[in-house]
Amino acid sequence: MTITITAFERSPDGGKGLARDTRVRWALEEVGQPYDVRLVSFRAMKEPAHLALHPFGQIPTYEEGDLVLFETGAIVFHIAGHHAGLLPDDAGARARAITWMFAALNTMESPILEFGNARILEGDKPWSKERLPLVADRVRNRLSQLSARLGSADWLDGAFSAGDLMMVSVLLRLRASGILDEYLNLAAYVARGEARPAYKRAFAAQLAINAGK
Amino acid sequence: MTITITAFERSPDGGKGLARDTRVRWALEEVGQPYDVRLVSFRAMKEPAHLALHPFGQIPTYEEGDLVLFETGAIVFHIAGHHAGLLPDDAGARARAITWMFAALNTMESPILEFGNARILEGDKPWSKERLPLVADRVRNRLSQLSARLGSADWLDGAFSAGDLMMVSVLLRLRASGILDEYLNLAAYVARGEARPAYKRAFAAQLAINAGK
Repeated sequence: MTITITAFERSPDGGKGLARDTRVRWALEEVGQPYDVRLVSFRAMKEPAHLALHPFGQIPTYEEGDLVLFETGAIVFHIAGHHAGLLPDDAGARARAITWMFAALNTMESPILEFGNARILEGDKPWSKERLPLVADRVRNRLSQLSARLGSADWLDGAFSAGDLMMVSVLLRLRASGILDEYLNLAAYVARGEARPAYKRAFAAQLAINAGK
Repeated sequence: MTITITAFERSPDGGKGLARDTRVRWALEEVGQPYDVRLVSFRAMKEPAHLALHPFGQIPTYEEGDLVLFETGAIVFHIAGHHAGLLPDDAGARARAITWMFAALNTMESPILEFGNARILEGDKPWSKERLPLVADRVRNRLSQLSARLGSADWLDGAFSAGDLMMVSVLLRLRASGILDEYLNLAAYVARGEARPAYKRAFAAQLAINAGK
Protein backbone atom coordinates (compact mmCIF):
# COMPACT_ATOMS: atom_id res chain seq x y z
CA MET A 1 0.00 0.00 0.00
CA THR A 2 1.20 3.48 -0.77
CA ILE A 3 2.34 5.54 2.19
CA THR A 4 1.49 9.24 1.98
CA ILE A 5 2.74 11.80 4.47
CA THR A 6 2.03 15.51 4.68
CA ALA A 7 4.63 18.26 4.97
CA PHE A 8 4.68 22.06 4.99
CA GLU A 9 4.28 23.70 1.61
CA ARG A 10 6.80 26.19 3.03
CA SER A 11 8.54 25.10 6.19
CA PRO A 12 8.99 27.87 8.79
CA ASP A 13 12.65 26.90 9.04
CA GLY A 14 13.21 27.27 5.31
CA GLY A 15 14.52 23.73 4.95
CA LYS A 16 16.79 23.26 7.97
CA GLY A 17 15.14 19.90 8.59
CA LEU A 18 13.47 20.87 11.86
CA ALA A 19 9.90 20.42 10.64
CA ARG A 20 8.60 17.16 11.98
CA ASP A 21 8.10 15.49 8.62
CA THR A 22 11.88 15.05 8.59
CA ARG A 23 11.55 12.60 11.52
CA VAL A 24 9.04 10.51 9.59
CA ARG A 25 11.04 10.72 6.35
CA TRP A 26 14.12 9.56 8.27
CA ALA A 27 12.29 6.56 9.71
CA LEU A 28 10.95 5.60 6.28
CA GLU A 29 14.42 5.89 4.79
CA GLU A 30 15.94 3.76 7.56
CA VAL A 31 13.52 0.92 6.80
CA GLY A 32 13.64 1.43 3.03
CA GLN A 33 9.98 2.28 2.46
CA PRO A 34 9.08 4.61 -0.41
CA TYR A 35 6.50 7.28 0.30
CA ASP A 36 4.55 10.06 -1.32
CA VAL A 37 4.33 13.58 0.10
CA ARG A 38 1.34 15.89 -0.02
CA LEU A 39 2.24 19.51 0.71
CA VAL A 40 -0.10 21.55 2.89
CA SER A 41 -0.28 25.32 3.23
CA PHE A 42 -0.64 27.02 6.62
CA ARG A 43 -4.19 27.93 5.70
CA ALA A 44 -5.13 24.41 4.62
CA MET A 45 -3.69 22.96 7.85
CA LYS A 46 -6.46 24.66 9.82
CA GLU A 47 -9.29 23.63 7.51
CA PRO A 48 -11.69 20.73 8.12
CA ALA A 49 -10.17 18.37 5.55
CA HIS A 50 -6.78 18.45 7.25
CA LEU A 51 -8.19 18.60 10.78
CA ALA A 52 -10.01 15.35 10.02
CA LEU A 53 -6.57 13.79 9.62
CA HIS A 54 -4.80 15.77 12.32
CA PRO A 55 -6.91 17.24 15.14
CA PHE A 56 -4.16 19.67 16.11
CA GLY A 57 -3.81 21.07 12.59
CA GLN A 58 -0.16 20.20 12.15
CA ILE A 59 2.08 18.15 9.92
CA PRO A 60 3.02 15.38 9.39
CA THR A 61 0.16 12.97 8.95
CA TYR A 62 0.55 9.40 7.73
CA GLU A 63 -1.89 7.61 5.45
CA GLU A 64 -1.55 3.97 4.46
CA GLY A 65 -4.74 2.45 3.03
CA ASP A 66 -7.46 2.99 5.63
CA LEU A 67 -5.02 3.87 8.38
CA VAL A 68 -4.61 7.54 9.24
CA LEU A 69 -2.12 8.54 11.92
CA PHE A 70 -0.86 11.83 13.27
CA GLU A 71 1.72 12.67 15.95
CA THR A 72 5.30 12.02 14.92
CA GLY A 73 6.08 9.66 17.78
CA ALA A 74 3.15 7.44 16.86
CA ILE A 75 4.00 7.47 13.16
CA VAL A 76 7.65 6.57 13.75
CA PHE A 77 6.59 3.87 16.19
CA HIS A 78 4.16 2.46 13.63
CA ILE A 79 6.87 2.37 10.96
CA ALA A 80 9.34 0.82 13.40
CA GLY A 81 6.83 -1.81 14.43
CA HIS A 82 6.06 -2.91 10.88
CA HIS A 83 9.49 -2.92 9.26
CA ALA A 84 12.88 -4.18 10.41
CA GLY A 85 15.64 -1.76 11.25
CA LEU A 86 14.41 0.57 13.97
CA LEU A 87 13.55 -1.63 16.94
CA PRO A 88 15.50 -4.61 18.30
CA ASP A 89 13.90 -8.07 18.32
CA ASP A 90 14.72 -8.81 21.96
CA ALA A 91 11.69 -7.84 24.07
CA GLY A 92 13.65 -6.04 26.78
CA ALA A 93 15.83 -4.10 24.35
CA ARG A 94 12.70 -3.22 22.38
CA ALA A 95 10.97 -1.84 25.47
CA ARG A 96 14.05 0.22 26.29
CA ALA A 97 14.22 1.64 22.75
CA ILE A 98 10.57 2.64 23.04
CA THR A 99 11.40 4.21 26.40
CA TRP A 100 13.91 6.49 24.70
CA MET A 101 11.29 7.51 22.15
CA PHE A 102 9.00 8.65 24.94
CA ALA A 103 11.90 10.24 26.83
CA ALA A 104 12.84 12.24 23.75
CA LEU A 105 9.30 13.50 23.19
CA ASN A 106 8.25 14.19 26.76
CA THR A 107 11.21 14.67 29.11
CA MET A 108 13.61 16.24 26.58
CA GLU A 109 11.39 18.00 24.06
CA SER A 110 9.15 19.76 26.60
CA PRO A 111 11.88 22.06 27.96
CA ILE A 112 13.35 22.42 24.48
CA LEU A 113 10.01 23.63 23.13
CA GLU A 114 9.73 26.04 26.06
CA PHE A 115 13.20 27.34 25.25
CA GLY A 116 12.22 27.73 21.59
CA ASN A 117 9.11 29.67 22.60
CA ALA A 118 11.23 31.93 24.81
CA ARG A 119 13.67 32.64 21.97
CA ILE A 120 11.22 32.99 19.12
CA LEU A 121 7.69 33.80 20.33
CA GLU A 122 8.86 35.90 23.28
CA GLY A 123 12.16 37.19 21.94
CA ASP A 124 10.82 40.74 21.75
CA LYS A 125 9.17 40.77 25.17
CA PRO A 126 10.54 42.99 27.94
CA TRP A 127 11.30 39.96 30.11
CA SER A 128 13.16 38.06 27.42
CA LYS A 129 16.72 38.92 28.41
CA GLU A 130 16.27 38.16 32.09
CA ARG A 131 14.16 35.07 31.59
CA LEU A 132 16.03 33.28 28.83
CA PRO A 133 18.90 32.05 31.05
CA LEU A 134 16.37 30.42 33.42
CA VAL A 135 14.77 28.54 30.57
CA ALA A 136 18.11 27.61 29.08
CA ASP A 137 19.15 26.12 32.42
CA ARG A 138 16.07 23.88 32.42
CA VAL A 139 17.29 22.52 29.10
CA ARG A 140 20.87 22.19 30.40
CA ASN A 141 19.63 20.20 33.38
CA ARG A 142 18.19 17.57 31.06
CA LEU A 143 21.16 17.67 28.70
CA SER A 144 23.56 17.06 31.59
CA GLN A 145 21.60 13.99 32.63
CA LEU A 146 21.39 12.69 29.08
CA SER A 147 25.09 13.33 28.56
CA ALA A 148 25.92 11.39 31.72
CA ARG A 149 23.82 8.45 30.60
CA LEU A 150 25.18 8.37 27.05
CA GLY A 151 28.80 8.56 28.19
CA SER A 152 31.11 7.37 25.46
CA ALA A 153 28.53 5.13 23.76
CA ASP A 154 27.55 5.65 20.15
CA TRP A 155 23.82 5.24 20.80
CA LEU A 156 21.58 5.29 23.85
CA ASP A 157 21.08 1.54 24.24
CA GLY A 158 23.11 -0.75 22.01
CA ALA A 159 22.47 -0.42 18.27
CA PHE A 160 20.83 2.62 16.65
CA SER A 161 17.06 2.52 17.19
CA ALA A 162 13.91 4.59 16.83
CA GLY A 163 14.80 5.96 20.27
CA ASP A 164 17.99 7.46 18.87
CA LEU A 165 16.19 8.70 15.77
CA MET A 166 13.78 10.61 17.96
CA MET A 167 16.37 11.86 20.46
CA VAL A 168 18.70 13.13 17.74
CA SER A 169 15.75 14.84 16.03
CA VAL A 170 14.74 16.57 19.25
CA LEU A 171 18.30 17.65 20.07
CA LEU A 172 18.72 19.11 16.58
CA ARG A 173 16.29 21.83 17.64
CA LEU A 174 19.03 23.15 19.93
CA ARG A 175 21.78 23.52 17.39
CA ALA A 176 21.14 27.16 16.50
CA SER A 177 21.28 28.15 20.18
CA GLY A 178 24.79 26.78 20.70
CA ILE A 179 23.69 24.95 23.87
CA LEU A 180 24.17 21.54 22.31
CA ASP A 181 27.87 22.24 21.78
CA GLU A 182 28.36 22.59 25.54
CA TYR A 183 27.99 18.80 25.70
CA LEU A 184 30.65 17.29 23.48
CA ASN A 185 29.34 13.75 23.57
CA LEU A 186 25.81 14.90 22.74
CA ALA A 187 27.02 17.06 19.87
CA ALA A 188 28.94 14.04 18.53
CA TYR A 189 25.86 11.85 19.04
CA VAL A 190 23.73 14.21 16.97
CA ALA A 191 26.44 14.38 14.30
CA ARG A 192 26.44 10.56 14.15
CA GLY A 193 22.72 10.67 13.51
CA GLU A 194 23.07 13.26 10.79
CA ALA A 195 25.80 11.21 9.15
CA ARG A 196 23.51 8.25 8.57
CA PRO A 197 22.68 7.84 4.88
CA ALA A 198 18.97 7.58 5.70
CA TYR A 199 19.04 10.91 7.53
CA LYS A 200 20.89 12.53 4.64
CA ARG A 201 18.26 11.32 2.18
CA ALA A 202 15.45 12.57 4.44
CA PHE A 203 17.13 15.93 4.88
CA ALA A 204 17.73 16.32 1.15
CA ALA A 205 14.12 15.45 0.37
CA GLN A 206 12.70 18.16 2.63
CA LEU A 207 15.31 20.65 1.48
CA ALA A 208 14.35 20.06 -2.15
CA ILE A 209 10.84 21.27 -1.35
CA ASN A 210 11.94 24.30 0.64
CA ALA A 211 15.00 25.46 -1.27
CA GLY A 212 14.47 28.72 -3.05
CA LYS A 213 11.15 29.50 -1.42
CA MET B 1 7.26 -11.86 38.24
CA THR B 2 6.83 -9.13 40.78
CA ILE B 3 6.35 -5.63 39.44
CA THR B 4 7.96 -2.88 41.50
CA ILE B 5 7.48 0.80 40.79
CA THR B 6 8.99 3.81 42.50
CA ALA B 7 7.09 6.79 43.86
CA PHE B 8 7.88 9.94 45.82
CA GLU B 9 8.42 9.43 49.54
CA ARG B 10 6.61 12.78 49.79
CA SER B 11 4.86 13.93 46.65
CA PRO B 12 5.21 17.66 45.91
CA ASP B 13 1.44 17.81 45.42
CA GLY B 14 0.75 16.28 48.83
CA GLY B 15 -1.34 13.47 47.35
CA LYS B 16 -3.47 15.16 44.68
CA GLY B 17 -2.55 12.36 42.31
CA LEU B 18 -0.51 14.52 39.94
CA ALA B 19 2.79 12.72 40.52
CA ARG B 20 3.44 10.44 37.59
CA ASP B 21 3.35 7.21 39.54
CA THR B 22 -0.45 7.66 39.57
CA ARG B 23 -0.48 7.08 35.80
CA VAL B 24 1.37 3.81 36.19
CA ARG B 25 -0.72 2.73 39.17
CA TRP B 26 -3.86 3.47 37.13
CA ALA B 27 -2.64 1.33 34.22
CA LEU B 28 -1.76 -1.55 36.55
CA GLU B 29 -5.17 -1.31 38.20
CA GLU B 30 -6.95 -1.29 34.82
CA VAL B 31 -5.28 -4.56 33.83
CA GLY B 32 -5.51 -6.09 37.29
CA GLN B 33 -1.80 -6.48 38.00
CA PRO B 34 -0.59 -6.27 41.59
CA TYR B 35 2.57 -4.26 42.22
CA ASP B 36 4.97 -3.25 44.92
CA VAL B 37 6.05 0.32 45.54
CA ARG B 38 9.46 1.51 46.66
CA LEU B 39 9.43 5.06 47.98
CA VAL B 40 12.29 7.37 47.05
CA SER B 41 13.32 10.61 48.74
CA PHE B 42 14.25 13.71 46.73
CA ARG B 43 17.85 13.19 47.75
CA ALA B 44 17.93 9.52 46.76
CA MET B 45 16.40 10.32 43.35
CA LYS B 46 19.60 12.15 42.39
CA GLU B 47 21.98 9.46 43.66
CA PRO B 48 23.73 6.88 41.46
CA ALA B 49 21.56 3.93 42.50
CA HIS B 50 18.38 5.63 41.31
CA LEU B 51 20.03 7.30 38.31
CA ALA B 52 21.02 3.82 37.14
CA LEU B 53 17.31 3.07 36.89
CA HIS B 54 16.19 6.52 35.73
CA PRO B 55 18.76 8.72 33.95
CA PHE B 56 16.67 11.85 34.59
CA GLY B 57 16.42 11.22 38.34
CA GLN B 58 12.64 11.09 38.49
CA ILE B 59 9.89 8.73 39.45
CA PRO B 60 8.30 6.39 38.52
CA THR B 61 10.52 3.54 37.45
CA TYR B 62 9.28 0.05 36.65
CA GLU B 63 11.10 -3.16 37.48
CA GLU B 64 9.93 -6.60 36.45
CA GLY B 65 12.60 -9.31 36.66
CA ASP B 66 15.54 -8.10 34.58
CA LEU B 67 13.53 -5.39 32.84
CA VAL B 68 13.99 -1.83 34.07
CA LEU B 69 11.95 0.94 32.46
CA PHE B 70 11.54 4.65 33.12
CA GLU B 71 9.38 7.31 31.44
CA THR B 72 5.70 7.01 32.20
CA GLY B 73 4.60 6.74 28.59
CA ALA B 74 6.90 3.78 28.02
CA ILE B 75 5.85 2.07 31.24
CA VAL B 76 2.14 2.44 30.51
CA PHE B 77 2.72 1.25 26.95
CA HIS B 78 4.61 -1.79 28.23
CA ILE B 79 1.80 -2.65 30.63
CA ALA B 80 -0.82 -2.10 27.90
CA GLY B 81 1.11 -4.30 25.50
CA HIS B 82 1.40 -7.23 27.87
CA HIS B 83 -2.05 -7.32 29.47
CA ALA B 84 -5.53 -7.02 28.03
CA GLY B 85 -7.64 -3.96 28.78
CA LEU B 86 -5.76 -0.89 27.61
CA LEU B 87 -5.22 -1.36 23.88
CA PRO B 88 -7.69 -2.66 21.28
CA ASP B 89 -6.88 -5.85 19.36
CA ASP B 90 -7.62 -4.38 15.93
CA ALA B 91 -4.32 -3.15 14.46
CA GLY B 92 -5.67 0.18 13.22
CA ALA B 93 -7.51 0.99 16.44
CA ARG B 94 -4.39 0.01 18.37
CA ALA B 95 -2.21 2.38 16.33
CA ARG B 96 -4.70 5.17 16.92
CA ALA B 97 -4.79 4.55 20.69
CA ILE B 98 -0.99 4.70 20.74
CA THR B 99 -1.24 7.94 18.75
CA TRP B 100 -3.29 9.48 21.54
CA MET B 101 -0.67 8.41 24.09
CA PHE B 102 2.00 10.30 22.16
CA ALA B 103 -0.37 13.24 21.56
CA ALA B 104 -1.03 13.48 25.30
CA LEU B 105 2.65 13.44 26.20
CA ASN B 106 4.06 15.64 23.46
CA THR B 107 1.43 17.92 21.90
CA MET B 108 -0.70 18.44 25.03
CA GLU B 109 1.68 18.06 27.95
CA SER B 110 4.41 20.35 26.55
CA PRO B 111 2.34 23.55 26.77
CA ILE B 112 0.77 22.35 30.02
CA LEU B 113 4.21 21.91 31.59
CA GLU B 114 5.20 25.36 30.33
CA PHE B 115 2.05 26.76 31.93
CA GLY B 116 2.86 24.96 35.18
CA ASN B 117 6.37 26.40 35.15
CA ALA B 118 4.94 29.88 34.58
CA ARG B 119 2.55 29.51 37.51
CA ILE B 120 4.83 27.77 39.96
CA LEU B 121 8.52 28.30 39.14
CA GLU B 122 8.04 31.83 37.82
CA GLY B 123 5.02 32.93 39.82
CA ASP B 124 7.10 35.46 41.76
CA LYS B 125 8.93 36.90 38.76
CA PRO B 126 8.27 40.49 37.66
CA TRP B 127 6.98 39.28 34.28
CA SER B 128 4.59 36.73 35.70
CA LYS B 129 1.37 38.75 35.51
CA GLU B 130 1.87 39.94 31.97
CA ARG B 131 3.24 36.68 30.65
CA LEU B 132 0.83 34.17 32.19
CA PRO B 133 -2.09 34.93 29.82
CA LEU B 134 0.15 34.28 26.80
CA VAL B 135 1.13 30.89 28.13
CA ALA B 136 -2.44 30.08 29.12
CA ASP B 137 -3.55 30.83 25.56
CA ARG B 138 -1.05 28.32 24.20
CA VAL B 139 -2.76 25.74 26.39
CA ARG B 140 -6.23 26.93 25.33
CA ASN B 141 -5.28 26.58 21.69
CA ARG B 142 -4.61 22.88 22.22
CA LEU B 143 -7.63 22.38 24.44
CA SER B 144 -9.92 23.91 21.81
CA GLN B 145 -8.62 21.50 19.21
CA LEU B 146 -8.93 18.54 21.53
CA SER B 147 -12.42 19.59 22.54
CA ALA B 148 -13.45 19.83 18.88
CA ARG B 149 -12.13 16.36 18.17
CA LEU B 150 -13.69 14.74 21.24
CA GLY B 151 -17.10 16.30 20.58
CA SER B 152 -19.77 14.38 22.46
CA ALA B 153 -17.89 11.09 22.55
CA ASP B 154 -17.02 9.41 25.82
CA TRP B 155 -13.44 8.59 24.83
CA LEU B 156 -11.05 9.73 22.12
CA ASP B 157 -11.38 6.75 19.80
CA GLY B 158 -14.02 4.15 20.64
CA ALA B 159 -13.53 2.31 23.93
CA PHE B 160 -11.38 3.60 26.80
CA SER B 161 -7.71 2.98 26.05
CA ALA B 162 -4.20 3.79 27.25
CA GLY B 163 -4.55 6.91 25.09
CA ASP B 164 -7.41 8.13 27.27
CA LEU B 165 -5.58 7.13 30.44
CA MET B 166 -2.67 9.31 29.43
CA MET B 167 -4.76 12.21 28.10
CA VAL B 168 -6.92 12.36 31.24
CA SER B 169 -3.78 12.22 33.39
CA VAL B 170 -2.20 15.11 31.49
CA LEU B 171 -5.39 17.22 31.59
CA LEU B 172 -5.70 16.69 35.34
CA ARG B 173 -2.65 18.94 35.72
CA LEU B 174 -4.86 21.83 34.63
CA ARG B 175 -7.62 21.41 37.15
CA ALA B 176 -6.27 23.80 39.78
CA SER B 177 -5.97 26.58 37.18
CA GLY B 178 -9.65 26.50 36.24
CA ILE B 179 -8.79 26.41 32.52
CA LEU B 180 -10.09 22.89 32.09
CA ASP B 181 -13.57 23.99 33.13
CA GLU B 182 -13.74 26.36 30.16
CA TYR B 183 -14.22 23.24 28.01
CA LEU B 184 -17.26 21.41 29.26
CA ASN B 185 -16.76 18.26 27.25
CA LEU B 186 -13.14 18.01 28.35
CA ALA B 187 -14.03 18.54 31.99
CA ALA B 188 -16.64 15.78 31.67
CA TYR B 189 -14.09 13.57 29.90
CA VAL B 190 -11.63 13.97 32.76
CA ALA B 191 -14.40 13.29 35.27
CA ARG B 192 -15.24 10.06 33.42
CA GLY B 193 -11.63 9.01 33.78
CA GLU B 194 -11.59 9.79 37.47
CA ALA B 195 -14.82 7.84 37.98
CA ARG B 196 -13.26 4.61 36.77
CA PRO B 197 -12.77 2.16 39.64
CA ALA B 198 -9.17 1.55 38.57
CA TYR B 199 -8.40 5.26 38.77
CA LYS B 200 -10.01 5.49 42.19
CA ARG B 201 -7.86 2.64 43.48
CA ALA B 202 -4.74 4.23 42.02
CA PHE B 203 -5.59 7.59 43.51
CA ALA B 204 -6.33 6.10 46.92
CA ALA B 205 -3.05 4.17 46.91
CA GLN B 206 -0.94 7.27 46.31
CA LEU B 207 -3.00 9.29 48.76
CA ALA B 208 -2.43 6.70 51.47
CA ILE B 209 1.30 7.35 51.20
CA ASN B 210 1.03 11.12 51.14
CA ALA B 211 -1.80 11.78 53.57
CA GLY B 212 -0.66 13.39 56.75
CA LYS B 213 2.81 14.16 55.52
